[in-house]
Amino acid sequence: MKDAINSAVIGLGSMGYGMAASLLRAGNRVHGVDLNREAMARFQAEGGAPGGLDAMAGELDAVVVAVLNAAQSESVLFGEDGIVAKLKPGAVVVACATVSPDFARAMAARCAGHEVHYLDAPISGGSLKAAAGRLSIMASGTPEAFAAAGPVLDATAEKVFRLGDAAGAGSAMKAVNQLLAGVHIATMAEALTFGMTQGIEPQQFVEVISQCAGSSWMLENRAPHIVAGDYTPHSAVDIWPKDLGIVLDIARAAKFSAPITAAALQQFLAASGMGLGREDDAAVAKVYARNASLRLPGETGQS
Amino acid sequence: MKDAINSAVIGLGSMGYGMAASLLRAGNRVHGVDLNREAMARFQAEGGAPGGLDAMAGELDAVVVAVLNAAQSESVLFGEDGIVAKLKPGAVVVACATVSPDFARAMAARCAGHEVHYLDAPISGGSLKAAAGRLSIMASGTPEAFAAAGPVLDATAEKVFRLGDAAGAGSAMKAVNQLLAGVHIATMAEALTFGMTQGIEPQQFVEVISQCAGSSWMLENRAPHIVAGDYTPHSAVDIWPKDLGIVLDIARAAKFSAPITAAALQQFLAASGMGLGREDDAAVAKVYARNASLRLPGETGQS
Repeated sequence: MKDAINSAVIGLGSMGYGMAASLLRAGNRVHGVDLNREAMARFQAEGGAPGGLDAMAGELDAVVVAVLNAAQSESVLFGEDGIVAKLKPGAVVVACATVSPDFARAMAARCAGHEVHYLDAPISGGSLKAAAGRLSIMASGTPEAFAAAGPVLDATAEKVFRLGDAAGAGSAMKAVNQLLAGVHIATMAEALTFGMTQGIEPQQFVEVISQCAGSSWMLENRAPHIVAGDYTPHSAVDIWPKDLGIVLDIARAAKFSAPITAAALQQFLAASGMGLGREDDAAVAKVYARNASLRLPGETGQS
Repeated sequence: MKDAINSAVIGLGSMGYGMAASLLRAGNRVHGVDLNREAMARFQAEGGAPGGLDAMAGELDAVVVAVLNAAQSESVLFGEDGIVAKLKPGAVVVACATVSPDFARAMAARCAGHEVHYLDAPISGGSLKAAAGRLSIMASGTPEAFAAAGPVLDATAEKVFRLGDAAGAGSAMKAVNQLLAGVHIATMAEALTFGMTQGIEPQQFVEVISQCAGSSWMLENRAPHIVAGDYTPHSAVDIWPKDLGIVLDIARAAKFSAPITAAALQQFLAASGMGLGREDDAAVAKVYARNASLRLPGETGQS
């Protein structure tokens, strides 16, 4: 067995909590940090390191940043109580939020100023894979950053894509993946409800299309939620205004016209505006259903 | 071995030719009919029935209509030299073009007036699967239509989806599949070229994304064409203004708002307007590449 490391996971949402638990299972010391004190207490009860992080920061080998977005990432790393200044030289930041490549490059440069490595390491796979230590990680960074992050990657990931020697490439590939994943969810919803106007039941849609050229990973994963009328959030609607917004921000900066992504974003914004932001992202189908006066499985007659 | 049937395939494009060849291989008598006399001569040389169809029409058990669209289908069936009036009672029309459900229902009703069965039977799978007798067929029609079409389905299809007792359901499901397939091709092109603006090479895009949640059947099938710079048409750009146009016509009639499909259609129209209509549909990436001043694999510096 490899040497255990001293680690912290900042952000104990469903993804971060799963990564922290996976690091624990692999025999590492793990500090779990979150604004939500309940999540912190639960993680400590499951074996997380006790006590405040501040006193321990200088002993950490790796800090996993699993917060929601760029602003939170920057705050955690370099804000008023930012952790980077407290880390020992040679420690590594494993940055998992979906951010722009430019932001990742800027964070890596600032970490380098503190002799801290930075692995641009957006994650993919959802909360179940996070809990199982089976994430996909789209990573880029210096060889030293990869080496220092090794125990984290080993404990949390099933697949690590090594995308280059510099921060930015990981975030770029994540943005590409999110473009596709978000559009595919909304298109699944568009096609499923379009089919309903032509007499095709959602169940039949899934049975047939999942075997046809129109299928996608997201269709096979999300369309069954609509069939079941179950919008328990595995991944929430509100992820997509954020992530497709990042994609379109990057695209605009590059003067890249992305009309399909733009159309999909509007549908997720409408879902969020309808109050569905915390529901499973398959709930974007409710935008189409409302527009076309359709009743999805599990919906009552109320509108 | 089952009894051979006396059949005709009208429309010897890449799909129809493959279906006709598959019917021949299965031991049936097959008349191949096309405006293109070369294709007819080639099919006869490969074992197709010789001579004109007119004299034989009354002996046919099944007529496969594999033309491009609704207008051609109607012309073949009920136009000035339409075949339905010449068929014997109990013969079956297997209608394979992508058409609206309403059109399919109208054709079925007119066939019924001649005591001819009509199987609403759009096909999917591309020219290679057509040649191999391994198509997917989304079929609906009366039990009598299915029974009469049995030898055709057996010879040409790997999968037959039985979608109901009336014409229309097959065409509806085909429209749903085409919505998804067309959007997925254009979205693949949008994502691949967006990635290029961020330094991701097309080859790396395919390697990584095909293993991620952003993948689709179409992405895995078409993105390699862009990587190879090979736009030999397996399925041409011009299929999509037609098929997504049918989808949006059906949607408009149902007062169904389909913004993502509408955005994808515009990209295929732009590709067609650029003179790429006869290239492989992955050439929709050239619209994005031109807009963003990118050079795709295999492209020269000329613009």
